[in-house]
Amino acid sequence: MSQDRHEERQQRLKQKVDERIDAAQLERGILIVFTGNGKGKTTAAFGTACRAVGHGKKVAVVQFIKGSWDNGERNLLEPHGVPFYVMSTGFTWETQNKHTDTQACLETWLHALQLLQDPQYDLVILDELTYMVSYHYLPLAEVMNALSCRPENQSVIITGRGCHRELLEFADTVTEMRPIKHAFDAGIKAQKGIDW
Amino acid sequence: MSQDRHEERQQRLKQKVDERIDAAQLERGILIVFTGNGKGKTTAAFGTACRAVGHGKKVAVVQFIKGSWDNGERNLLEPHGVPFYVMSTGFTWETQNKHTDTQACLETWLHALQLLQDPQYDLVILDELTYMVSYHYLPLAEVMNALSCRPENQSVIITGRGCHRELLEFADTVTEMRPIKHAFDAGIKAQKGIDW
Repeated sequence: MSQDRHEERQQRLKQKVDERIDAAQLERGILIVFTGNGKGKTTAAFGTACRAVGHGKKVAVVQFIKGSWDNGERNLLEPHGVPFYVMSTGFTWETQNKHTDTQACLETWLHALQLLQDPQYDLVILDELTYMVSYHYLPLAEVMNALSCRPENQSVIITGRGCHRELLEFADTVTEMRPIKHAFDAGIKAQKGIDW
Repeated sequence: MSQDRHEERQQRLKQKVDERIDAAQLERGILIVFTGNGKGKTTAAFGTACRAVGHGKKVAVVQFIKGSWDNGERNLLEPHGVPFYVMSTGFTWETQNKHTDTQACLETWLHALQLLQDPQYDLVILDELTYMVSYHYLPLAEVMNALSCRPENQSVIITGRGCHRELLEFADTVTEMRPIKHAFDAGIKAQKGIDW
C-alpha cells in the first residue's frame, strides 16, 4: 500500500475514533460482564483490577467458586490493599451439597452486598457469580437489586459462563470469550502462573 | 432440582473435569492469543501477568500500540520487576506515517526478540502485536520464527484484533473476545482505571 493510501486510511480511522470519543460524555460506574466458555474471563477481570490499582483506585474482589489452592492474583493484589472474599467450599463439584453450597454462597454474598453499598470502592469484582445464579444458590432479584442501588461511580465486573439474560441486559459492557482452542485439549497440563 | 439429582449432575461434571486433568500431562510453555473485537484482550493478558507475578514468575511486556498516557498496569507491575517496552510513536493513527511507524515497530520488536531468546522469562506479553503483522510493519515469518525458537518453558501471550491465521494455527490457546455491547456505544466516557 502506498504512503498516501496508508495515510488516508489511517486518517479515516482516527476520525472515527475521535468522533466516538467526543460522543461519549457520560461519567458513571459501569457494569462489565465477561462471559462465554473461553479462557480469559477471570483473567480480564484481574487485568482490570491491576489497571485500577495502578491508578490508585480502590478495588475489592469476591470469588464465588475457587479451590483453596495458591492464588497468584491474590498474592500480588492483597498487599496492595485489595480485600479478597473467597467462598469457603471451593469448587462446588468437590462438595456437591446443595444445602451447604447455598449457605456458603449466601455468606459470601453478604460481603459482596457490603461492598456494593460502599462508595469508597471504585471497582468490585464478582468472580464466577454467574454460576451462583444459574445453580439457584442466589436469587437473581437480589443481585439485580444490589447492582441497581450501588454508588453511582462504582464499577462492577461479573465473570462466569452462561450469564443470565437479565444481567446481560442490565450490563453496560459485555464480552463473550469464545474458545477457539485450548492447550488443555492438546494434552498440555494446567500451569501455575498461567492457568491459576 | 432435588438434592439427589443435583449430586448426580455435579458428580458427572467432576468426573469429566478429573478425566481431562488426568489426560493433560505435557508440560511446556504455551502460546495464548486473545483476539476479536471485544473488550478484554489486553486486560486478560495483564490478568495473566498479575497471576504469574503473584507466583514469583518472571514476566516481561512489549506494547506495540499504546498512547503515551498514564498506564495503570505499568504503574502496578513495573515495581514488581516487570520490564515494559512500549513503542514510542503511540497510536499509529496519531502518527500516520508508514515509514516511521515501521521503524518504531522494528525497534520495539528487537526487545521482543531478546525476551523470546531469554529462558529466564516465564511469560512474555506481546500486546497489540497482531496489528504490526496486518499493517505489514513486521514480517509474519520473523514472528513465527522467534516464537518457534523460544525457550521450551516460556509462555507467550499475543493480543489484538484480526490475528493472522498462521499465528492462530500455531497457538495453543485462542480466545476470541466477542463484543456483545460496549458502554462507549451508550455514550459513556472511557474511564481511568477501567478502560486504560
